[in-house]
Amino acid sequence: MPLDDRINAAVSRAISLSRGPAAPGKLSTCLHYATHPGGARIRPTILVSVAKACGDDQPELTDHAAAALELIHCASLVHDDLPCFDDAAFRRGKPSVHCAFSEPLAVLTGDSLIILAFQVLARATVDHPSRGAELLLTLTRCSGMPHGICAGQGWESEEVIDLAAYHRSKTGALFIAATQMGAIAAGQEAEPWYELGDRIGEAFQVADDLRDALCDETTLGKPQGQDDLHGRPNAVATLGVQGAYDRLRDILAGAIASIPSCPGEAMLAHMVRAYSEKVTPAMPARHRA
Amino acid sequence: MPLDDRINAAVSRAISLSRGPAAPGKLSTCLHYATHPGGARIRPTILVSVAKACGDDQPELTDHAAAALELIHCASLVHDDLPCFDDAAFRRGKPSVHCAFSEPLAVLTGDSLIILAFQVLARATVDHPSRGAELLLTLTRCSGMPHGICAGQGWESEEVIDLAAYHRSKTGALFIAATQMGAIAAGQEAEPWYELGDRIGEAFQVADDLRDALCDETTLGKPQGQDDLHGRPNAVATLGVQGAYDRLRDILAGAIASIPSCPGEAMLAHMVRAYSEKVTPAMPARHRA
Repeated sequence: MPLDDRINAAVSRAISLSRGPAAPGKLSTCLHYATHPGGARIRPTILVSVAKACGDDQPELTDHAAAALELIHCASLVHDDLPCFDDAAFRRGKPSVHCAFSEPLAVLTGDSLIILAFQVLARATVDHPSRGAELLLTLTRCSGMPHGICAGQGWESEEVIDLAAYHRSKTGALFIAATQMGAIAAGQEAEPWYELGDRIGEAFQVADDLRDALCDETTLGKPQGQDDLHGRPNAVATLGVQGAYDRLRDILAGAIASIPSCPGEAMLAHMVRAYSEKVTPAMPARHRA
Repeated sequence: MPLDDRINAAVSRAISLSRGPAAPGKLSTCLHYATHPGGARIRPTILVSVAKACGDDQPELTDHAAAALELIHCASLVHDDLPCFDDAAFRRGKPSVHCAFSEPLAVLTGDSLIILAFQVLARATVDHPSRGAELLLTLTRCSGMPHGICAGQGWESEEVIDLAAYHRSKTGALFIAATQMGAIAAGQEAEPWYELGDRIGEAFQVADDLRDALCDETTLGKPQGQDDLHGRPNAVATLGVQGAYDRLRDILAGAIASIPSCPGEAMLAHMVRAYSEKVTPAMPARHRA
């Protein structure tokens, strides 16, 4: 099964757990709306790629891990779009959840998706106690406080921002979760996979800054110039367009060099390069040397 | 150690997991603010009481379960108080989180507390794989969709409310979690403990309706008359004050009759009676026969 289909099937199976005969219909609809169609599903794609590179001896467990990670990511998007944060009207080219439904339903959608992510892993833990518990621990660490995506978003309420902690928790944490959970699902140690996730996260941040600075709203599927608007730090503002492209190239070289020795090492290097081409916008003619 | 101290210590230990050297300070403060001082800690008290009635052979696991349940309850209070839901300025006699800090921090506080609850149980699962996985599953079921407290809150966005499903998920679910998780933590089957939790939840709902109708804001620690204001169903509106008191007495008798046979059966019956006295407001003179 192609990777995209495998991941979409895993997310759909997870969402089906949230349905029931006596469930409130609108919230049920919201959970599907917030997760389908997906964006690039980058984080679960990395997770499954790492698991495959490590042998993927329990593919069902890998699927559960990938779905759980994507649910946490989708939850964070729904809450980030709320009026009190980015107040974003569009996401993935369609109205954001609070605009299409309501603010109460958007808060509950995020909450329910977070809980569902842990439910998916809790179910998997019954059959795979040791890997399941480690997957759960890794996902909670990368999502909550003090160093997960909640912490990252929390930094935006501080007067003085620790920039390294901000980026690592807001963007990096779920990429670290992706590489580490892929390894854990395949029965490998998580620690050697930290650096790859960390560097992919850094690359994603710089590519996102470039897209935010260079692309229009139609390409982005969300409002452009959000970082400037919210006064958030941005690699293009700091390094310039050419500098940001150079930085991205260096980070990706480091990411590839950091891949631990495993059967699928070459395949993973190829995945990192393909991913980088996918997320990096073309350099505008006026910036070319 | 008295029950209250044991539970407060467990909640404090859980909150300490959310602290770290490079964590955003305000969100850190919020997590403590939203959980200390506690309210009556009724749900974890029931959980620990049931565990003790069943032998409590792994008291540390019981403590983790109690803390996780209380964190989910506190998270639900923080999100329920948000402007888009109850817009409540006060909770437990002090400003609600979004009023004392900000709306973004209140959303993140709820999210972080949910994740922390599962982190506490995930850590416990490493040492207690089978009981840990079952505790996780029970807590996710009672919190999320389709039948947990998120579902209960979700019903308030429907045009036509399934009243039985609404009450069972909005209020009952965490009481069912309390009795079942207490049994699981002590190595017992969860299923026989469903009815006790369900009936205690029903009693709590009726007692809450009586308090909402009869008590002033100082006694409640939150705004009075919220059900009328939000058009929510209420036992006093349906049955009258005397009818609601009669209903409460019947439910509690049923709750006591439902206690499964266990070493601490008599102690549990006493706990249910004491709890009922604690949450039921005195009947006003004008309603006495």
